[in-house]
Amino acid sequence: MLLIVLLFIQQLPAQQTRTEKDLLGEKQIDANAYYGVQTARALENFTISGVPTSFYPDYVKAFAIVKLAAARANTEVGRMKPEKLAAIEKACQAVMDGKYHDQFLVDMYQGGAGTSANMNVNEVLANIALELSGKQKGDYHSIEPHDDLNMGQSTNDAYPTAIKVALLLHNDKLTKEADALAKAFHKKGDEFKGMVKMGRTEGQDAVPMTLGQEFHAFGNQLDAEIATLRKTEMYLCEQNMGATAIGTGITATPGYADKCAAELAKITGKPIVKSADLIAATSSQQAFVIYSSALKSFAITLSKISSDLIFLASGPRTGIFEINLPALQPGSSIMPGKVNPVMPEVMNEICFKVIGNDVTVSMAAHSGLLQLNAYEPVEAIAIMESQGLLFKILPLFRKNCIDGITANKNILDKYITQSVGIVTALNPVLGYDKTTELAKEALQSGKGILELIREKKLLTEDQIKKLLDPAALTGEK
Amino acid sequence: MLLIVLLFIQQLPAQQTRTEKDLLGEKQIDANAYYGVQTARALENFTISGVPTSFYPDYVKAFAIVKLAAARANTEVGRMKPEKLAAIEKACQAVMDGKYHDQFLVDMYQGGAGTSANMNVNEVLANIALELSGKQKGDYHSIEPHDDLNMGQSTNDAYPTAIKVALLLHNDKLTKEADALAKAFHKKGDEFKGMVKMGRTEGQDAVPMTLGQEFHAFGNQLDAEIATLRKTEMYLCEQNMGATAIGTGITATPGYADKCAAELAKITGKPIVKSADLIAATSSQQAFVIYSSALKSFAITLSKISSDLIFLASGPRTGIFEINLPALQPGSSIMPGKVNPVMPEVMNEICFKVIGNDVTVSMAAHSGLLQLNAYEPVEAIAIMESQGLLFKILPLFRKNCIDGITANKNILDKYITQSVGIVTALNPVLGYDKTTELAKEALQSGKGILELIREKKLLTEDQIKKLLDPAALTGEK
Amino acid sequence: MLLIVLLFIQQLPAQQTRTEKDLLGEKQIDANAYYGVQTARALENFTISGVPTSFYPDYVKAFAIVKLAAARANTEVGRMKPEKLAAIEKACQAVMDGKYHDQFLVDMYQGGAGTSANMNVNEVLANIALELSGKQKGDYHSIEPHDDLNMGQSTNDAYPTAIKVALLLHNDKLTKEADALAKAFHKKGDEFKGMVKMGRTEGQDAVPMTLGQEFHAFGNQLDAEIATLRKTEMYLCEQNMGATAIGTGITATPGYADKCAAELAKITGKPIVKSADLIAATSSQQAFVIYSSALKSFAITLSKISSDLIFLASGPRTGIFEINLPALQPGSSIMPGKVNPVMPEVMNEICFKVIGNDVTVSMAAHSGLLQLNAYEPVEAIAIMESQGLLFKILPLFRKNCIDGITANKNILDKYITQSVGIVTALNPVLGYDKTTELAKEALQSGKGILELIREKKLLTEDQIKKLLDPAALTGEK
Amino acid sequence: MLLIVLLFIQQLPAQQTRTEKDLLGEKQIDANAYYGVQTARALENFTISGVPTSFYPDYVKAFAIVKLAAARANTEVGRMKPEKLAAIEKACQAVMDGKYHDQFLVDMYQGGAGTSANMNVNEVLANIALELSGKQKGDYHSIEPHDDLNMGQSTNDAYPTAIKVALLLHNDKLTKEADALAKAFHKKGDEFKGMVKMGRTEGQDAVPMTLGQEFHAFGNQLDAEIATLRKTEMYLCEQNMGATAIGTGITATPGYADKCAAELAKITGKPIVKSADLIAATSSQQAFVIYSSALKSFAITLSKISSDLIFLASGPRTGIFEINLPALQPGSSIMPGKVNPVMPEVMNEICFKVIGNDVTVSMAAHSGLLQLNAYEPVEAIAIMESQGLLFKILPLFRKNCIDGITANKNILDKYITQSVGIVTALNPVLGYDKTTELAKEALQSGKGILELIREKKLLTEDQIKKLLDPAALTGEK
Repeated sequence: MLLIVLLFIQQLPAQQTRTEKDLLGEKQIDANAYYGVQTARALENFTISGVPTSFYPDYVKAFAIVKLAAARANTEVGRMKPEKLAAIEKACQAVMDGKYHDQFLVDMYQGGAGTSANMNVNEVLANIALELSGKQKGDYHSIEPHDDLNMGQSTNDAYPTAIKVALLLHNDKLTKEADALAKAFHKKGDEFKGMVKMGRTEGQDAVPMTLGQEFHAFGNQLDAEIATLRKTEMYLCEQNMGATAIGTGITATPGYADKCAAELAKITGKPIVKSADLIAATSSQQAFVIYSSALKSFAITLSKISSDLIFLASGPRTGIFEINLPALQPGSSIMPGKVNPVMPEVMNEICFKVIGNDVTVSMAAHSGLLQLNAYEPVEAIAIMESQGLLFKILPLFRKNCIDGITANKNILDKYITQSVGIVTALNPVLGYDKTTELAKEALQSGKGILELIREKKLLTEDQIKKLLDPAALTGEK
Repeated sequence: MLLIVLLFIQQLPAQQTRTEKDLLGEKQIDANAYYGVQTARALENFTISGVPTSFYPDYVKAFAIVKLAAARANTEVGRMKPEKLAAIEKACQAVMDGKYHDQFLVDMYQGGAGTSANMNVNEVLANIALELSGKQKGDYHSIEPHDDLNMGQSTNDAYPTAIKVALLLHNDKLTKEADALAKAFHKKGDEFKGMVKMGRTEGQDAVPMTLGQEFHAFGNQLDAEIATLRKTEMYLCEQNMGATAIGTGITATPGYADKCAAELAKITGKPIVKSADLIAATSSQQAFVIYSSALKSFAITLSKISSDLIFLASGPRTGIFEINLPALQPGSSIMPGKVNPVMPEVMNEICFKVIGNDVTVSMAAHSGLLQLNAYEPVEAIAIMESQGLLFKILPLFRKNCIDGITANKNILDKYITQSVGIVTALNPVLGYDKTTELAKEALQSGKGILELIREKKLLTEDQIKKLLDPAALTGEK
Repeated sequence: MLLIVLLFIQQLPAQQTRTEKDLLGEKQIDANAYYGVQTARALENFTISGVPTSFYPDYVKAFAIVKLAAARANTEVGRMKPEKLAAIEKACQAVMDGKYHDQFLVDMYQGGAGTSANMNVNEVLANIALELSGKQKGDYHSIEPHDDLNMGQSTNDAYPTAIKVALLLHNDKLTKEADALAKAFHKKGDEFKGMVKMGRTEGQDAVPMTLGQEFHAFGNQLDAEIATLRKTEMYLCEQNMGATAIGTGITATPGYADKCAAELAKITGKPIVKSADLIAATSSQQAFVIYSSALKSFAITLSKISSDLIFLASGPRTGIFEINLPALQPGSSIMPGKVNPVMPEVMNEICFKVIGNDVTVSMAAHSGLLQLNAYEPVEAIAIMESQGLLFKILPLFRKNCIDGITANKNILDKYITQSVGIVTALNPVLGYDKTTELAKEALQSGKGILELIREKKLLTEDQIKKLLDPAALTGEK
Repeated sequence: MLLIVLLFIQQLPAQQTRTEKDLLGEKQIDANAYYGVQTARALENFTISGVPTSFYPDYVKAFAIVKLAAARANTEVGRMKPEKLAAIEKACQAVMDGKYHDQFLVDMYQGGAGTSANMNVNEVLANIALELSGKQKGDYHSIEPHDDLNMGQSTNDAYPTAIKVALLLHNDKLTKEADALAKAFHKKGDEFKGMVKMGRTEGQDAVPMTLGQEFHAFGNQLDAEIATLRKTEMYLCEQNMGATAIGTGITATPGYADKCAAELAKITGKPIVKSADLIAATSSQQAFVIYSSALKSFAITLSKISSDLIFLASGPRTGIFEINLPALQPGSSIMPGKVNPVMPEVMNEICFKVIGNDVTVSMAAHSGLLQLNAYEPVEAIAIMESQGLLFKILPLFRKNCIDGITANKNILDKYITQSVGIVTALNPVLGYDKTTELAKEALQSGKGILELIREKKLLTEDQIKKLLDPAALTGEK
């Protein structure tokens, strides 16, 4: 079992340091650190949420992929020397393999449009490459964070590209889990086939259906959300590598941009392409807005299903109680024997957070200014949080809730027998006005519909069988 | 009965026109119109929503109040001549009395931070004053829209002040209707006193309460929202008249600002005061944000209550069915006899709109730039829409739904008899572990709690009577 | 010119009435009215927003299309007689042609999941058909609102289908206007080609670009939003006609559902299909959520562009002032000569409303219960309002703002000359550290970059020309 | 320096365990753990966000305060023995002192309306009390998690009370930091006194003010938000201890509720009171909605100020550049010398998250069902996240940004000299029409206003001095 624990570590005075410098002057860096002066400044400037980039491993991996693709593309256009590429490739691969994740410590919240996150990656990769080449960390003569790791790049292209790649990587995992959940619903749909029950609209008795149909419908709605999540990947696949600062490609070598997109496609297996207008692509947040909206749509459907399950499982004595959810824990600190629908509840909580996060994305996306949107970090935070929470809850929800749902068949039957809604099926035969009279009488007298029909000899027994068999009325194939 | 109807009127070529001019040049104005050149331009520029300012009569009235207060204050400081004031007072009073509302035609949506709405008011009031003084409309020599009606003012103080006064006027009406609704719930609370039922948490059977307590709790939650709506008036009462363009009071006469606030207080009967920092007040949107939040809070409570009513009235045969909502219309075009909870449903619809409008207000309020927020018009639109919809639905909801609710006492009784939750009352006597065992056995065996207690001789009959009387457990006084 | 005016009409006592009845009893109906008893009840129950369905003409048209398709499909499967179809077709066509719109008076806000709107349509079409067949209004023996106009239907399929068709019809108009706007930006992009200026990121001087690139980027971002709006039509094209009450197809004739979808496709010219799971389709709100999200995304981009225009046009003496927006109206009631960016401002207002409406849709969509979501009316309200406002503002924004934008070339030039950002181009030659020193010195000394380069003899004149020509640095093709 | 680090710890197989059991059966618990069986189940059920309750130390402290107050109140009414209270008091005090925080591991996200969080506290406190009394952990004979630590309580009163107390504790810290920030703005306001500049509305030149006034206005807007945050504490001070499961007080001893509120007031120093209607209080979410709205309002103001700072500091060569923000880190990975407004940017990011979180709270609050809202955990998450992020950013923003702001006086002067807006001051003397002509001519000719006035001899030099002195026009006292 894995436990995530938060520790508050008092940084000890580094016994050994190295000196690095930048525009603002010199700074002592822990000699063991792979990051450099700019990361060190960011660690001081942004002690905010306590959530470092490494909290999202796919994000660190994605950033290494971006740097790898850029280095390869730079080499292909003749700007980077193959031996330098070799060192950088090793460093990128190491990070992609999950090593050195403890070096990506910059807070997810940061000003500067992601510059700190980008420089963190540049510095760590440079020092890994240096070390793997037998050099000292901080000895940037052979491999330099800006000139080599950021070659032909800017934060303004590398950072959003890394986010998009991270979302793509994680979307695969998310949709796989979503698929498993949808399948679990369909399995229940098969299991509950033929179990006739009353459908309800607006909380009121409507007409017959089967519990199987109900669960297949849950599954089909999830399938539709999964399809949307996959379709929106096309937005994430349009990238602005080669745009550099504002989309004009300043400092990038001709030909590099296309090759970089191709390398990204090769490494990720996703149909990544270069945007047709790199200036538009640098300021556009549409990909984040649309993907966040797709997560929101998914959350809305999950929330609706969760609330339905809570309703269907309500009881045991004073609710609907058509189904049982598995008991996971005692439900109450005061009410003995109570078992609560904890999984649909926590699912709803997560969905509400996802829907709120979508508003955060809207706020951030509309707040861009001219050639750049400096608020991409909070879009990344909001979307990765949403994506991550959904990814975590899906298997729990499936295993601890959906897989264990059972039906209370006797209750389903009772409702069918008592209900008046079956009268709807007589519309085509008797007309709306007459069936309305019939329904009214049934409700007022407390009698059943069949009872009344027979009393009034409105239909023959044959007609009754043909027209009013609940199972037939569900149309279940 | 009043019916609101939308007509699409083809404006006829005005047979007679008068000529007016402004910074942009001359323009022909319909000779019958009380508005002038700037309104005419706005009517062309902003043909957007089809909702004119006159859609909100309290808003037109509020604007006239603002102009009246300003004219009086200007007279008090010696800047406006009493005879001019006399003419303007008459014009303002006429508008406050609801005349000339058809002249306030500028679209609620407008750029320019409300300049068009302000100029519409200035022009109409000037021409009414002229006409009432025996002058020709458009003959601005004696009374001029800018120099007289806007004296010592700017759109930037007059417009937000008019909105705030409008919200204050309408808040009185809204809270009065909200009060009536809360009282209706309390009346039902009294009516349902002593009707013991099972309370539910998380959809699961909990412990006994009375239906009266449930309805009083609805009423008390509304009372709390009403108190909040009234408390937030203090934000609307802090005004920036005298600030003029940016809060420095340029063009305003010393002493005018305080007198204007005092006049506003006198006319409206509300404790209106001048903001201590007129520059901060000019750009601050806090009053709108807070009042919109109060409407949102009210909507959340109304929505929660509505959903509860839908749940409690669910059925008639396959739901909870503890209460009946009045039948207002046939519930379905296909299912005969169905009656739907249409009033709680439409209440929820309105609440969802109010909650969305609050996000609109947040977007607008954060988008201010330096000395002014140009998006006050959409804040006004969002808040007035929310306020107006709630005001309209409250009496319908009360008369057509709450007042007619009846209880299904036999069902309430049945749930109490069947439920296991009563076991909670034994915690202090038997301890949580033993009562848990008892509850478990009851649920698994289908037996009642009392049956088991007697079987196991856990309590004497005296103890049972003392500890487990459902009515006593509700604690209803 | 068309003006929308709101009139408060006191309904006169109808001189002649006819009697109709329903589940709740008899009711007098104005003899001239084409609507019937259920519409009359709804007019009393829902006097809320003052916005009737006829406020959205495409929505009325769409509802007639749905009824036409259903009648044809019912005839094809042999359930409706051809002569009845003929009468109904004429009635539907008349409504589609815009006649009788004054009969669709039910408030957009309504409980009952749209039942009132659906019955309003059924009743009006029945009476038109009766009248066109030489019968009396209200004489429902030959053509009946439920049995004929609602044949094989339920509000639960006809209502959402009508909304979706309405959104499809209006989306055509909206995207056409959006296209025109994007083209206007591209035209300006061509006009401003070669006008070199400084790009900005995070409000700070960045690197050169052209004003033409900036406007083409606006155009391209709009193009991307238009593409999304069109792509999301596929969600609106998946329909649940044939589902009837809850998706089981109760009362619908076998074969009818497919034929109805085919008829809808034929009439609208859109690739409308029947959903594969009609039960899922009945409760699913995904189409509305996704289309609303696409409108939100569009609004975010429009808002970002509008704010950019306000920033670029800021001034004239104390702002950026790179461009001039056309003067539409005097900008201030107090500051003479001031001209404000009223069009981008009102665009922002609308965008904020659209973004808030998307939250309303989320709230409504997640609040569905079991087989139906009763809150579709407020989703329709929110989306149609958003769609309608955007449709109205787009041409105004284009004609009154974008088409008239001019560039202040001398100011663009001045910024290029003064800026330090051009130093970025030297990164590949001098390395990041050296260029940083150079930039620092320029900023501190107030000198220009070229001046310093020449002073320090860092580059030959040939290199300068090759590396630092601003026009070349923009990469404009 | 403190660094927050996330570690992924593989829980070792506990070498020693103890056995505990509950409704669902037996379970092995790590012998070292202070938590018990229900916490252990929750740790398995809710491995979701990786954020445990201990991430919010004030929340853990608040929960211990609640249990302490309850134990004291139970003793006062004679239900708990003084010697048991003594042991529980010691345990509560130890937790309040920050010890044992590593035992509060339950995920912030949880179903069951907080039952797991409550039981975690009950179990840990029971075991600490046992240990401090010389007993074994898990030996619940003398002190039992339910019967003693939850005595007269339910999660449904203890959990929301703990959240409210936590928010109260943290609100003190937050408003203290907000106060310091407001003071920093006021200090700059004093420093910038007398520095005349042009005010701007809608991005356009308006009329003169001082930079000091601008910064005081920022400070005053923050003061207003702080006042609101403090005022809303009254909502958090209304508590439902004594309500137990649904507000009827089942299992609570008469008199206990009032005493518990009094104890809470004594321990916290806050005017905590018992709600007048405990049933309403159990389901009401108003306190959370209102406090979240206050945080949102605060965020809106902070966001607006941040965007203003970015605008005012834009440049250095192609922007407004009236002020300088301190340089905290190199601004760009590609553009040498660039320094970005990172602090206002990260502030905006946090504000967008806070505004999104407010929507999450709305969703959760409206989703309550009958006697309880099971979504309080996500409200706590959203609000505590917002409160925590704001608390963290405020001192950074103050020290690293506001305190170091300097003015570019020469630029302020230049704008005043060039601007036309000063003409506004002539309105009262020349009338709006004439001044408009003057402004128009100045703008078209490029001439200054004073130049024109002298040319046209509109005013004497004395008048000019009296009417048009920019410093006088600012009205600064």
